[in-house]
Amino acid sequence: MNYEHIFDQAIDRLHSEGRYRVFIDILRNKGMFPNARCFHHHNGPKPITVWCSNDYLAMGQHPKVIAAMEEALHDVGAGSGGTRNIGGNTHYHVDLERELADLHGKEGALLFTSGYVSNDTTLSTLGKLLPGCVIFSDELNHASMIAGIRNSGCEKRVFRHNDVAHLEDLLAAESPDVPKLIAFESVYSMDGDIAPIHAICDLADKYNALTYIDEVHAVGMYGPRGGGISERDAAAHRIDIIEGTLGKAFGVMGGYIAADSKIIDVVRSYAPGFIFTTSLSPVLVAGVLASVRHLKASSEERDGQQAAAASLKSMFREAGLPVMDSVTHIVPLMVGDPVRAKRISDILLAEYGVYVQPINFPTVPRGTERLRFTPGPAHTEQMMHELTVALVEIWDRLDLELSRAA
Amino acid sequence: MNYEHIFDQAIDRLHSEGRYRVFIDILRNKGMFPNARCFHHHNGPKPITVWCSNDYLAMGQHPKVIAAMEEALHDVGAGSGGTRNIGGNTHYHVDLERELADLHGKEGALLFTSGYVSNDTTLSTLGKLLPGCVIFSDELNHASMIAGIRNSGCEKRVFRHNDVAHLEDLLAAESPDVPKLIAFESVYSMDGDIAPIHAICDLADKYNALTYIDEVHAVGMYGPRGGGISERDAAAHRIDIIEGTLGKAFGVMGGYIAADSKIIDVVRSYAPGFIFTTSLSPVLVAGVLASVRHLKASSEERDGQQAAAASLKSMFREAGLPVMDSVTHIVPLMVGDPVRAKRISDILLAEYGVYVQPINFPTVPRGTERLRFTPGPAHTEQMMHELTVALVEIWDRLDLELSRAA
Repeated sequence: MNYEHIFDQAIDRLHSEGRYRVFIDILRNKGMFPNARCFHHHNGPKPITVWCSNDYLAMGQHPKVIAAMEEALHDVGAGSGGTRNIGGNTHYHVDLERELADLHGKEGALLFTSGYVSNDTTLSTLGKLLPGCVIFSDELNHASMIAGIRNSGCEKRVFRHNDVAHLEDLLAAESPDVPKLIAFESVYSMDGDIAPIHAICDLADKYNALTYIDEVHAVGMYGPRGGGISERDAAAHRIDIIEGTLGKAFGVMGGYIAADSKIIDVVRSYAPGFIFTTSLSPVLVAGVLASVRHLKASSEERDGQQAAAASLKSMFREAGLPVMDSVTHIVPLMVGDPVRAKRISDILLAEYGVYVQPINFPTVPRGTERLRFTPGPAHTEQMMHELTVALVEIWDRLDLELSRAA
Repeated sequence: MNYEHIFDQAIDRLHSEGRYRVFIDILRNKGMFPNARCFHHHNGPKPITVWCSNDYLAMGQHPKVIAAMEEALHDVGAGSGGTRNIGGNTHYHVDLERELADLHGKEGALLFTSGYVSNDTTLSTLGKLLPGCVIFSDELNHASMIAGIRNSGCEKRVFRHNDVAHLEDLLAAESPDVPKLIAFESVYSMDGDIAPIHAICDLADKYNALTYIDEVHAVGMYGPRGGGISERDAAAHRIDIIEGTLGKAFGVMGGYIAADSKIIDVVRSYAPGFIFTTSLSPVLVAGVLASVRHLKASSEERDGQQAAAASLKSMFREAGLPVMDSVTHIVPLMVGDPVRAKRISDILLAEYGVYVQPINFPTVPRGTERLRFTPGPAHTEQMMHELTVALVEIWDRLDLELSRAA
């Protein structure tokens, strides 16, 4: 048994497939997002523009968020000091759960340390509590949902992406007595498409299944108050469990679910990933409270993001760049090869001060490697124009095809 | 299939066993720890003293930590905005990983969103990478290690708590060709005892096993620089993977592992719980950096904690209270019944302004329910005296036995 040899082989596999990841070392400049400083391959910081942040609405620099965090830091200190049950249940946590329940029109909400943990621990706990439960999972569901379903020990049926007919075939094949849970996302963040929520809920009604929706790429950004696609489509009341993140559009960190009181109470009482972990720092929770409250009342950031995404898609399309279909704020550019995607990203960073990360397997299927841009209200038309010119120049330099006719 | 009925039954089980958890709603007062305000069953905040915080050294209110967090908040904003690979790798993260590697004398370190996630994702990932691996686990290991081992899909052998002879029996029973990993803690936080690290490492050498130690209740508090029991016992170089938390003695939030570069690289590259989650907020990371650096150089907090723990144990013992054996900073008081433990805790909070949470199954075995006190450098002799008097009064009131002879 040579452990080192096994670990070497694991790393070599990544190098040989061109998908060994190198982390780009940056600091964002608060008040000047999307500007940042990059320390990667430099002796000191060099200015860059960030095009791949999931702080979609730049709420991470919003004055109300910063002020709320500063106030909490000085009032109650840095951390919570314990689990929710043992010393770590602060009044901020209680308030934020009320606010999130209200955002989704649910009786309750429950905070987790991340969106990943929300999915993993909620799905695995519900699966374990329902004897013989079968979980129906969209084939493009996020890694954290896949982990939760695997860790539940339940039988899993994977339905083709957003394919309601296939989902119905799978549901109809199970006995009516078997507990069923349908798990899917609203916005799929690597393609930018959206689930047919009402059609899925119709099937859930017909076959008596629970519904679980991941709205991490939608909360804050869709619906009149930022309640996500389920709010925009007036479907929140039809979903049993809505899961969201506090680390993307809300700009801070953490995750949550919203549901009726009973479901919240069982997850709170039985989920190891909730019970046995230090709760979110009250500093973060205070920041999120300010962010959620602001975005409930203001649509300016949402409108700015949608306008920016529309502009960038249109500039890419006019320049003949292979922008993928997306009905959301996500602007993916297909490359189709991991080595080439990294090469383009490296040139953008080194020569143009543009930071966009290549997206490789296992985040997306092999052969669909891409660059994924997330323009937001803080990206200007000028920045988009410069980005488009840079990409066209690189496409030419690497002899990649531009569809000039488009 | 009636989902509501199943959930009702799950909650009823907890009520009938007297272990339904009620979260106590508090706000700590920065600069005045262990003082806090309690909102539980009151219309407004009421002053309390917190005796069950895992912010063991009160670093959550240390001026250096607060100043570092405030500076980061204003420099780079609230959150990281992405995963470590996609936009969320800040210079703070890079610096803190270097600092933690140095703390443990290792080549590298890797940050996670929590100690729970560190254990779960590292153990499950290593187990999956080593074909046929068998994991040897102390029977009192934390829920997060148990989750990681289960999620690895590996065979598990549970050895009796701190029982090296039993561990050897189990190791000897496996083929030398089988990959082996021994997972244990340094300080077991509910009993306050300590693992025989060198004896376990001797067995690891003899049977060619990897070693994984959870030092979450020791980092910051033991060893001349706060490197934990493995530093105190000069054993860090013998351990392959040291896991720690940033949410207890360091006072903030998050978790990490320290190990050689190769192990860090495989976990970084293969662990879904690391790859697919928004990285720690740079505000938290900045605070931890200040905390780790301070505790590397200062032993004042460690000395204060040890003195407080010795005083409280001695006062409890002199008063005849059933304080359990503990060679660490943990001061557990055995009650042995979940309903009675909750009753004592409720009286302390309502009548004495003392907050200590009852510890029930599954955190500890049934029949060993207890109160767990964590005195620190900010708890005064006066507070300890008042606490002892209160407990003796309650013991009398509830007709519980005091060993006056002790």
